[in-house]
Amino acid sequence: MTERGRGRPRGSDAGRTRHHIIATARTMFSERGYAATSLRAIAGQAGVDASLISHYFGNKSGLFFETMALPVDPVAAKRRVFSAGLEGAGVRIVEAFVNLWDPHHQVLAMLLRNAFDRTAPDTNALTVAEHIMIPHLHAELHGPNRRERADLIAAQLIGMASIRYVLELEPLASASSSDVARIYGPSLQQLLTPA
Amino acid sequence: MTERGRGRPRGSDAGRTRHHIIATARTMFSERGYAATSLRAIAGQAGVDASLISHYFGNKSGLFFETMALPVDPVAAKRRVFSAGLEGAGVRIVEAFVNLWDPHHQVLAMLLRNAFDRTAPDTNALTVAEHIMIPHLHAELHGPNRRERADLIAAQLIGMASIRYVLELEPLASASSSDVARIYGPSLQQLLTPA
Repeated sequence: MTERGRGRPRGSDAGRTRHHIIATARTMFSERGYAATSLRAIAGQAGVDASLISHYFGNKSGLFFETMALPVDPVAAKRRVFSAGLEGAGVRIVEAFVNLWDPHHQVLAMLLRNAFDRTAPDTNALTVAEHIMIPHLHAELHGPNRRERADLIAAQLIGMASIRYVLELEPLASASSSDVARIYGPSLQQLLTPA
Repeated sequence: MTERGRGRPRGSDAGRTRHHIIATARTMFSERGYAATSLRAIAGQAGVDASLISHYFGNKSGLFFETMALPVDPVAAKRRVFSAGLEGAGVRIVEAFVNLWDPHHQVLAMLLRNAFDRTAPDTNALTVAEHIMIPHLHAELHGPNRRERADLIAAQLIGMASIRYVLELEPLASASSSDVARIYGPSLQQLLTPA
């Protein structure tokens, strides 16, 4: 064992170790599910002592919430998309969504898996969708059935992300963001500004 | 212990017991995930001997596949929807889907949860979607990007079912099938017959 060994690293080493534990946990929660992943197993996989994980994150759900931190700001993205009005916003939403999440596709896949996993604690992702994104969408819409339409726009994005990032079905999984936006955008537009 | 006790029931009793085990397992796989649910726990919850489960289903994955048996015939439903042509098929698909699955909403919720659960064996549901429903949809479409459009129609239905049956977000979770079809149908129509 080296001098640092399995003790508590310091300074920028600590930051790297913390980041490494989070990345390891994210992969394991995604692959095995929350209930079947123990802190001990995460520690073993990450090559650190389980006590270090407790030190950094408190307990398993504390670590879980760290793995769920959003790497993007969906509210800022939504503001940019709608600043140009509702016209053409269907295409802009899809393109912005894919460009925003493609570089973080593993994170989004895990967020979706966990949203469907009853053994996981209530997820930030679902809270963000239900209490932030859907009400934000709703506020942009006019006309009848605004709340149902906001739900269904969220449904379209959840469905598209599920096919592209979780189930990885072709040809959608490999299509360019501009192709996806061009083909799918008019569907979202129907809910933004119904004919 | 009664004479039947925990032995092997016969005839219609056997059918009822088998059905009871499947229903119990379905709920437990859905609530806890595949990996975290043991045959022993299912037997305990169902009030039967674990050996009876092995007798009926072989092992855990055998029982799992029984819980995934589709209670509806999506291919027959698809045939009925498209027999009247592509015009208006968006509304008809959504209404048929909701009417078909509403009475089996717990089953569909479990199929979706398991499709997202990496610890579960490959699911019939995903196989049906990828190898049967999407190619069937694809065969009905004309014009450019047929394969992408078939994927995205599946995405719309997966997303809608996720919001309505798994995440149960309101107002969509309680909307009538005709309201969902009226509001969402034109979005699917955009992919069936792009403007």
